[in-house]
Amino acid sequence: MAAQTAVAEPGVSGDDGGFTLRSPEGTSYRVDIVSGVFAPGSALLAEHCEGRRVVAFLGPTVERLYGDRLRRYLAAHLAPGSWSVVVIGGGEEQKTMASVEEICARAKAAGLDRRGVMLAVGGGVTCDLVGFAAAIYCRGVRYIKVNTTLVGQVDVGVGVKTGVNALGTKNMLGSYHPAHASINDPAFLDTLPERQIKCGLGEIAKMAIIRDARLFRVLEECPEVFRQSYPVPAWLAAADAGRRGVEDYVLRTSMALMLEELCPNLREHDLARLVDFGHTFGPVIETAGDYRVAHGESVAIDMAVSAQLARVLGLIGADDCERIVRLIAGLGLPVYDPETCTPELMGQALRASWERRGRRLHLVVPDGIGSAVFVDDLEDVPAAALEEALDALAVRPGGLPGPLAVAR
Amino acid sequence: MAAQTAVAEPGVSGDDGGFTLRSPEGTSYRVDIVSGVFAPGSALLAEHCEGRRVVAFLGPTVERLYGDRLRRYLAAHLAPGSWSVVVIGGGEEQKTMASVEEICARAKAAGLDRRGVMLAVGGGVTCDLVGFAAAIYCRGVRYIKVNTTLVGQVDVGVGVKTGVNALGTKNMLGSYHPAHASINDPAFLDTLPERQIKCGLGEIAKMAIIRDARLFRVLEECPEVFRQSYPVPAWLAAADAGRRGVEDYVLRTSMALMLEELCPNLREHDLARLVDFGHTFGPVIETAGDYRVAHGESVAIDMAVSAQLARVLGLIGADDCERIVRLIAGLGLPVYDPETCTPELMGQALRASWERRGRRLHLVVPDGIGSAVFVDDLEDVPAAALEEALDALAVRPGGLPGPLAVAR
Repeated sequence: MAAQTAVAEPGVSGDDGGFTLRSPEGTSYRVDIVSGVFAPGSALLAEHCEGRRVVAFLGPTVERLYGDRLRRYLAAHLAPGSWSVVVIGGGEEQKTMASVEEICARAKAAGLDRRGVMLAVGGGVTCDLVGFAAAIYCRGVRYIKVNTTLVGQVDVGVGVKTGVNALGTKNMLGSYHPAHASINDPAFLDTLPERQIKCGLGEIAKMAIIRDARLFRVLEECPEVFRQSYPVPAWLAAADAGRRGVEDYVLRTSMALMLEELCPNLREHDLARLVDFGHTFGPVIETAGDYRVAHGESVAIDMAVSAQLARVLGLIGADDCERIVRLIAGLGLPVYDPETCTPELMGQALRASWERRGRRLHLVVPDGIGSAVFVDDLEDVPAAALEEALDALAVRPGGLPGPLAVAR
Repeated sequence: MAAQTAVAEPGVSGDDGGFTLRSPEGTSYRVDIVSGVFAPGSALLAEHCEGRRVVAFLGPTVERLYGDRLRRYLAAHLAPGSWSVVVIGGGEEQKTMASVEEICARAKAAGLDRRGVMLAVGGGVTCDLVGFAAAIYCRGVRYIKVNTTLVGQVDVGVGVKTGVNALGTKNMLGSYHPAHASINDPAFLDTLPERQIKCGLGEIAKMAIIRDARLFRVLEECPEVFRQSYPVPAWLAAADAGRRGVEDYVLRTSMALMLEELCPNLREHDLARLVDFGHTFGPVIETAGDYRVAHGESVAIDMAVSAQLARVLGLIGADDCERIVRLIAGLGLPVYDPETCTPELMGQALRASWERRGRRLHLVVPDGIGSAVFVDDLEDVPAAALEEALDALAVRPGGLPGPLAVAR
């Protein structure tokens, strides 16, 4: 329902309050950046709800930290009886069709009609479930999401994918359902656990490695950007950037890069996507490790493997490869997981990606800092090359620590 | 996946082989008319599959009548091992999320990837299920449908709605997922049971009543159009129409009218839809009668009730109202069902539609032959008016038979 006829040129345009994406096929949606989205005086969320019925869904952690604030906000801004708040289960194991059906049942019980709004407040799992429910409830109702995690704000939250795990495969069933509005409030990051901050940094590093040498350098110099205050580097200020501080620069730049990559290919008609960097070996590391390795950590390991593979294949120099691996490790992320980074499992991962991407590999590897290319054929990645890439990470030479432990 | 960037002006354009719809928001799809779609020499279906993997789904009746022909066609035109045929259950009670998940499981077992094709061969239930599965499998794969029923060919088959019954409501969950191609082969009508032909005529009468006085007159003069051969009426030939015969004229005109109504509002952002004529009281007649009354029959009864209601409300003259009721009965369709056409149930139906249409009634009633208007407010339909309308159908005055029995 969020799809609107484009009135302006396709593309991504930024303003003080966020970004507007207009895709070539006519879909448009808004990514808002606001501080204090549930503050009594903040009009943004209420305006997006436009006097419609609203059912808000949130996981247990968001309920505990922000549930009362959300209820007070809705009570103050919406008509009595026109809204309700439903707490749903969290965790990857809840990402099932049964959960989506339960969300629809709760919405129906709350009297949500076709003009109603499903509001998700949370991270990836909550938004994936509520977004999918919103896509199929009455064949699609307005969907608004408030992204509470860093990964949500810079990655999945600004895109249009929803989905559940089924038939033994991650995100096997789902939809492309743009949120009417995707709201990013940096204040949520203050209560985010350290591990989730790091996972978000993994996705930010992804965009830096494939697209933006300047962002890469900022991350090198300010690895704790979401936990400590850094002065704006002089070289960045000289480039007339970072005026609103390093944290804001990193957030906005990541969102903008992600939106620009998504815009021409919102529904992934083209299966060769640069933003799939980190998402070829990653899914197997996640599932074979039984979700002991978090998504952002699997992306980090995948990026390190892909960089080493690019080096072995002669696509990137050893120095740039080392700089990439060092950045990932410097952000506090793992670059290797001994239990899952076996040549056998990583070979299977290549084959599964080849299947998933319409029998083309479309493996993204960096060919410099801020630049990447595709390796399209399965035959271009010999088993020996993969083994050599993995070996380089298993025994880290030089000044870096060995394989970083994955938190349990 | 069928959505394509529009290169031409939005609208519906007809040609010898069918129609192309281009919606203002950029979706485009094809409705093909072809005789002998599974004939060895027919290239159309194979071309739409474009060398992709194909899983065909069909119900038990289609399997019995056309299964072998379909397999021979696929074997002759597609690469060995690239296609399979799966027989699924039929019947409204199978329209569940569980059936959709089963279809996805069968597709995955057959190795269908994101570039694959789900092919539905059948009527409304098969297409609703397979279309919905195609909408969510890998977040959407190419969907092709071969409509084997008359209702499919002139009504649901040319639109983009898919769905399943859930939470006690018809089509509660679903999607707008345009088929890459919707293929209509009139030859299927030869094996269609009489009752289903009549149900299709109900939907054709719907388009005639709300949009096309000429089609209305053709139906009055040729009520058995799909069962006997009529000469083209002289007045129709004089209007330079009906060149390819009455049956072809009725089929093409119905398809074109339906596509024109759908085109500007494909995803029903506007909940006031003329094509909802016959679909306000109908759903309750269907469900309260436990599906004893078929969908097309419920549409027929709803149209008669709506016409009488329009007469009571002073929106249409008694003569035109009578002509509409006579046409419906003359096509062999019921105009009343004593068990469900009670003022209480029909009042509930109005309220349910009001809920479903975003708390506006949007009741479509004819205000002439080939013309209709909306009654938008619940208060504009007093209980007494509804009762008077129903009474006029319960006791049919004049030369018409009384309430027509619904086949069991």
